[in-house]
Amino acid sequence: MAQGTIGTSEFDRDTAIARRAPGTSAVFDADLSAGWTIGHAVNGGYLLALLGRALGETLRHPDPFSITAHYLSASKPGPALIRTEQIRASRTLSTGQATLLQFDEDGAEVERIRVLATYGELDALPEDVRTTAKPPALPPYERCLSSEDGDPSTTPEIAGRLDIRLDPATAGWAIGAPGGQGEMRGWFGLADGRDPDPLALLLAVDALPPAVFELGVTGWVPTIELTAHIRSRPAPGPLRVSVSTRNLAGGYLEEDAEVWDSQDRLVAQSRQLARVLRTS
Amino acid sequence: MAQGTIGTSEFDRDTAIARRAPGTSAVFDADLSAGWTIGHAVNGGYLLALLGRALGETLRHPDPFSITAHYLSASKPGPALIRTEQIRASRTLSTGQATLLQFDEDGAEVERIRVLATYGELDALPEDVRTTAKPPALPPYERCLSSEDGDPSTTPEIAGRLDIRLDPATAGWAIGAPGGQGEMRGWFGLADGRDPDPLALLLAVDALPPAVFELGVTGWVPTIELTAHIRSRPAPGPLRVSVSTRNLAGGYLEEDAEVWDSQDRLVAQSRQLARVLRTS
Repeated sequence: MAQGTIGTSEFDRDTAIARRAPGTSAVFDADLSAGWTIGHAVNGGYLLALLGRALGETLRHPDPFSITAHYLSASKPGPALIRTEQIRASRTLSTGQATLLQFDEDGAEVERIRVLATYGELDALPEDVRTTAKPPALPPYERCLSSEDGDPSTTPEIAGRLDIRLDPATAGWAIGAPGGQGEMRGWFGLADGRDPDPLALLLAVDALPPAVFELGVTGWVPTIELTAHIRSRPAPGPLRVSVSTRNLAGGYLEEDAEVWDSQDRLVAQSRQLARVLRTS
Repeated sequence: MAQGTIGTSEFDRDTAIARRAPGTSAVFDADLSAGWTIGHAVNGGYLLALLGRALGETLRHPDPFSITAHYLSASKPGPALIRTEQIRASRTLSTGQATLLQFDEDGAEVERIRVLATYGELDALPEDVRTTAKPPALPPYERCLSSEDGDPSTTPEIAGRLDIRLDPATAGWAIGAPGGQGEMRGWFGLADGRDPDPLALLLAVDALPPAVFELGVTGWVPTIELTAHIRSRPAPGPLRVSVSTRNLAGGYLEEDAEVWDSQDRLVAQSRQLARVLRTS
């Protein structure tokens, strides 16, 4: 496969948007690719990246510092419309909202996702770092498990777009032996080799299998709400992602993700509220 | 002091709202109380509770499951307007947005806060709990420190509304000797003795001093965005709150809060992105 680069990769092609008119309230046409699905559902992180791109083209500042998505109904591959609005802009930060719409059989609008976000400029931040968090301890890439090590009949479409290698210590669920820890760790890259940027981090925070698979939960774990903080522009090279759930209760769970770049910098932190439909 | 009860306490009086007209898009009048300020700023958790109440009166479901606020400009004591809108409602969940407005000297609207939230019904959730998180280890209430143990000249107005007792192990900052751990732990209650409910949890997640005070940061640490998940209706009695920051970098920080009730149930989880203005 040819080396993907920022701007021309599969990810950039499938998150491309076409703006209808300029201004601080904007409308974009998008086409949700069937290449980023898990079963019938389009991946939430891919959709967040698409909305993040539209907000980046609308707001005064380019980079998502904090972005929250509420997933209202399941998106389907095909045409979609994104509406964005700048709510406020100061010298250093701007806040906006976005909505992703599709159309039903009668042509009526169906809202899929509502987003609220504050953007800034990552490259303008001072260099100071006082992080007490530690990168996940992961075996080397070549000793971790790819989707090709699993059952091909259950491999989702999105697996062909991603290069995810799971730590074998957190992959027991894949052979029916969940480890019981509520953690998932792995290497993350785009399959075509494109380097990470802030938009790819929005994909990375929701790309690993749900951490609750290691607690015996199976099937679809739909996201109700996901918030991601992008804390630094990622260095080139593979990312390490750790995902954990500490409070599975009342049929809901939180899932926290941390994304570390090749320079050991904590580049993204996210939390989502998700719903359990099935427990084995 | 008389015992406060849900519905008649200081907190209920100061988060009271008056609806102008019925419907799924609503307008409420509110009066931001000067009793909940820190310096000139009205506390963000108090404001979140006010907005949470307005959404609870707008949406099909009563309880905030996930609520995100972006703080756009500093709110001032006095009149305010809240506009709410139901975006979508299903059988179990409804999603809405809200905005808090005040008016400048010329009478023009100034937006203070934009909120996006999904509501449900806490009392309808199944009883299963599989929480691996542990409640914070706190000394007994009477061995923790209240604001009355500090310098009265720096005690903020809000201290009179809250009964917060900090673990002495995380209160070094108050005597100029920050502990260096980025953690803050304490007991939390309303000063008039009103028992906690989901709205009071929205206050509790942003009520302790910033955890970064223990890392030598001083002064105002303005919240950019705060997301709270309310996971269970709290039992009567005092709450325990733990707050931590793991990634202070580039002038920003995340702050996570956990709130535990008197039955050892993890009732709320929150994360905020905040900005550092001063470091000692």
